[in-house]
Amino acid sequence: MYEQEVIQRLQGIANQLRVHSIASTTAAGSGHPTSCLSAAELVAALFFYHMRYDPKNPQYHNNDRFILSKGHAAPLLYAAWAEAGFIPPAELLNLRKLTSDLEGHPTPRLPFVDVATGSLGQGLSAGVGMALCARLDNLDYRVYVLLGDGECAEGAVWEAAAMAGRLKLSNLIAIVDVNRLGQSEATTVGHNVEVYQKRFEAFGWRTEVIDGHDLEEILEVLDAAGLGDQPLAIIAKTIKGAGVSFLADKDGWHGKPLSKEEAERAIAELQPKACSAEGITIPEPNRLPPPENIAPASYPPVSYKKGDMIATREAYGNALVRIGAVDRRICVFDADTKNSTFAIKFFQKYPERAFECYIAEQNMVGVAVGFAARGKVPFASSFACFLTRAYDFIRMAGISRANLKLCGSHAGVSIGEDGPSQMGLEDIAMMRAVPESVVLYPCDAVSTEKLVEQMALRRGICYLRTSRPKTPVIYDNEEDFPIGGAKILRQSTNDKVTVVAAGVTVFEALKAADVLQKEGIAITVIDAYSVKPLARDAILAAARRTNNIVLTVEDHYIEGGLGDAVAGELCNEGVRVYKLGVTEIPHSGKPEELLAKYRIDTAAIVHLVKELVK
Amino acid sequence: MYEQEVIQRLQGIANQLRVHSIASTTAAGSGHPTSCLSAAELVAALFFYHMRYDPKNPQYHNNDRFILSKGHAAPLLYAAWAEAGFIPPAELLNLRKLTSDLEGHPTPRLPFVDVATGSLGQGLSAGVGMALCARLDNLDYRVYVLLGDGECAEGAVWEAAAMAGRLKLSNLIAIVDVNRLGQSEATTVGHNVEVYQKRFEAFGWRTEVIDGHDLEEILEVLDAAGLGDQPLAIIAKTIKGAGVSFLADKDGWHGKPLSKEEAERAIAELQPKACSAEGITIPEPNRLPPPENIAPASYPPVSYKKGDMIATREAYGNALVRIGAVDRRICVFDADTKNSTFAIKFFQKYPERAFECYIAEQNMVGVAVGFAARGKVPFASSFACFLTRAYDFIRMAGISRANLKLCGSHAGVSIGEDGPSQMGLEDIAMMRAVPESVVLYPCDAVSTEKLVEQMALRRGICYLRTSRPKTPVIYDNEEDFPIGGAKILRQSTNDKVTVVAAGVTVFEALKAADVLQKEGIAITVIDAYSVKPLARDAILAAARRTNNIVLTVEDHYIEGGLGDAVAGELCNEGVRVYKLGVTEIPHSGKPEELLAKYRIDTAAIVHLVKELVK
Repeated sequence: MYEQEVIQRLQGIANQLRVHSIASTTAAGSGHPTSCLSAAELVAALFFYHMRYDPKNPQYHNNDRFILSKGHAAPLLYAAWAEAGFIPPAELLNLRKLTSDLEGHPTPRLPFVDVATGSLGQGLSAGVGMALCARLDNLDYRVYVLLGDGECAEGAVWEAAAMAGRLKLSNLIAIVDVNRLGQSEATTVGHNVEVYQKRFEAFGWRTEVIDGHDLEEILEVLDAAGLGDQPLAIIAKTIKGAGVSFLADKDGWHGKPLSKEEAERAIAELQPKACSAEGITIPEPNRLPPPENIAPASYPPVSYKKGDMIATREAYGNALVRIGAVDRRICVFDADTKNSTFAIKFFQKYPERAFECYIAEQNMVGVAVGFAARGKVPFASSFACFLTRAYDFIRMAGISRANLKLCGSHAGVSIGEDGPSQMGLEDIAMMRAVPESVVLYPCDAVSTEKLVEQMALRRGICYLRTSRPKTPVIYDNEEDFPIGGAKILRQSTNDKVTVVAAGVTVFEALKAADVLQKEGIAITVIDAYSVKPLARDAILAAARRTNNIVLTVEDHYIEGGLGDAVAGELCNEGVRVYKLGVTEIPHSGKPEELLAKYRIDTAAIVHLVKELVK
Repeated sequence: MYEQEVIQRLQGIANQLRVHSIASTTAAGSGHPTSCLSAAELVAALFFYHMRYDPKNPQYHNNDRFILSKGHAAPLLYAAWAEAGFIPPAELLNLRKLTSDLEGHPTPRLPFVDVATGSLGQGLSAGVGMALCARLDNLDYRVYVLLGDGECAEGAVWEAAAMAGRLKLSNLIAIVDVNRLGQSEATTVGHNVEVYQKRFEAFGWRTEVIDGHDLEEILEVLDAAGLGDQPLAIIAKTIKGAGVSFLADKDGWHGKPLSKEEAERAIAELQPKACSAEGITIPEPNRLPPPENIAPASYPPVSYKKGDMIATREAYGNALVRIGAVDRRICVFDADTKNSTFAIKFFQKYPERAFECYIAEQNMVGVAVGFAARGKVPFASSFACFLTRAYDFIRMAGISRANLKLCGSHAGVSIGEDGPSQMGLEDIAMMRAVPESVVLYPCDAVSTEKLVEQMALRRGICYLRTSRPKTPVIYDNEEDFPIGGAKILRQSTNDKVTVVAAGVTVFEALKAADVLQKEGIAITVIDAYSVKPLARDAILAAARRTNNIVLTVEDHYIEGGLGDAVAGELCNEGVRVYKLGVTEIPHSGKPEELLAKYRIDTAAIVHLVKELVK
């Protein structure tokens, strides 16, 4: 039993949050007020009774974390931070304006938002990452994730649930706001809350079913959070639009603001039962030492011998071990492909910072984003093709400006016999179209190692594309590979064509240069290891010396890859760009057979160059 | 109790399948023999005792369907079809060769493969689609999906499970081959089969746990398949590498063929216990009338008034209703956004062919692919940004050459206040990089309607990008919009620049033409409604008349979209392409504010044209 004063005060705050949510969405002329109303008591209890945090410093490292997975209830989150004193209440009325960072869905432009939400079913993965990170950093903060019931239809929620259950993350609490109504109709489960209960239990969670508007019940289950050795799912039966007579449990109100007049009526109902949170005592977090998330002054040197045969995927594994030795921020994730991506080398050396995510790429990326939000430098790998599974998570990581590092191995037809389902042929297109992303595609072990260093030092999303076949080391160990650079591998005064390649096609281009040389045709060969940002100026300068003729060759579909990147950057310069790339669904076969069949091998380059110099 | 003769014969066939799987992967020098061995009894029982199908005609419309969700066990599938008489056994030794369609993972180049598999966790969704389609077509075939245990970590499996459970698809049988060992380590669940049982039950399935090598148990549960009103999950405890002493339950054998000598030893163990399936009676399917999956001779006419304001997303809904009235192949799917995508219009009119998939985009696409495999023309819609959730499914649909139609609404910053998480800004890049795909982006209601017709008539993956804001009707109802075409909206003899736009930017370009006209600068304006294939020749011809200067403007990230498409196609022609597109993470705001801020509005076009004609 709780003191009635406490309960009544929280009830008043819950109604105050409702008032804010309605007022701000009506001022904006859009938004999801009824989705806010169902969770008002839950948020009031979390922010003004249970969670331990410094309301003046939302990023304090041992604050409890709160993730609004149902991001469309953003006005409720903003209202809570206003009542906590962090946002001036008047600012709430600037919701969704170009001039305010109180956006339609939460983004980390706001200091109290760790990860952008708004694509449903992603918050729990980030929560798993943060809860796991607390364990790694010996911190006792807890992670609270507020989910909608509709979003529990996303499979990613169950990927995250499985990982949390398996790792017994008792510092993770999921709260499902079961308000029954989705966007276009009622959810399939409705108010049968025991369905969610059974599902979470089947994935290893402790569960509690409560009335999400009964503060006694809410406080009771929250006070028992952290007990036992399982994560806790609180299944809260709620009413969408709760607290306002003409909104409660009504169809047709999803994503609709109230008119000015309706808002006045609603607020008139709520105001007498509302009160501010001013003066309320928010529990303080324990003051514990911060984790040392600092980049080292330098990394140990690289040592390969020129001519040694080593796959770039293996060099990736070597690089993780080498830089991970001195950079404790580095954590590594894989989706049951670590023996193929070679992330396994790090797993074996630093198991405490290595996290097997099994065949669940969406959750892997979400967990990594959670680590990034806590100051780590997460490297997550799988086959390049399987990272497409996580594109929505990657997209949202872009919006979060997450410091996420991805590695996709087994790029292109050069993997050979496994066939098209295992070939990453759209990954460059996918990753280029993430704002502020970096896309790297090295051809040898040295460049791979140096680029992994660059990824660790660069803030933001970086993607490394690695290949299956062994390729010769062609660079000196001392060579630098800045992001945005390129290497000119062949150039003479009489070159006729500039060939721009990356990854395995660099070697095809070099062989083509040899073949053509014998026939008296000289070409420039460029290793465009940085596909985004592209070494525009270097390629343009080379093109100028070859009569503005450029040929690109890539083990990727012809759309959206290296060729489009070069064409897109150079074709307002009067450069003619000819593209070689994969133009059909590939077949199984030997790597060299496939490079030939899909016209991205030495012979194809030689043939096209000859056509161009005719 | 079954006759021992039956059991022994099936056991012999199972071992024969093992022999084939080992021999073919050893001949190929790659592959996953141990993943085949664990499921040999399951497949023998399905193909040579239980399933009703015509082994001479794998596509007979009432055959039971079999989906090998664990696609890496392809050699086992091929072995079964060889023993069923469809493949010459000698052909099995051409596994994974460029000259054979027995690829590393199954693709529909083989007539007995409905959907490509090999990206794990996708087969069950296709199975749900086919099982649902059987119901729609009044056929009594059943759908059997063989899953690996490792792939049950994919959330998409639980999206599919939820839909099957909800719809009580008792004609769907999932068989989970719980062989305990994943690729890089053991699965998290291991042989605790009751975990899978609890999970499937929590999603509404009937379950049976069996010893996957005990044919008595297998036949017993298969004979009871179809009973009750739930889908059935058979959780089969198996041994990876079963049947060969030195492979069984051993680590380190995933994805490795046996050496010639090892294969000989293994086959020597198996051969005495193996026998051919020759002469065995395969149960026949019931001969039922085929579904009428035929395109109509024509569609009813379109009728809009020029100048009427209507969003392309609404025209999409209108088109579905209009053509769905006469084209019974059309089925419609949505992910709880149907009131926003306007698919709801079809749902209301033709509920029997409309399937709400809730917030689970991966499963939605997989189910639609299942429908396509059964001769339907599925249209699946959500917000464009949320289709990124399904990119791996779309990629695999590409490899399946599925007749899939996708519609992504709410494209670009022009959605306004909801913010970046709701804006599709990478969808063109994503969809262009699907082989053989068509990417369409209409600006008005007439062109939208006509393009939806084209999508229904064109075989293969087609993507339609629709917009949130209302735009004026600018085309005549009689106008044709062929795939690969473009419309020249403004052109005069003295044009200085060709502006290529699509969707909402068409109207910005038209306004820019007006503004510039007043200042004495004439421009060509092209509506590039078909982004892929692009109307290369038409745009090139226009460019030739404007001094080879083209300006593209799009409500999409600058990478991989319309601009890159135009540059990639034209820049070997000496055309200079200047691109306007979104180059940073957008903010919430009013649509017109955002078009201005991200420099894709009238003012931006006017400004750049003036720069170019200076």
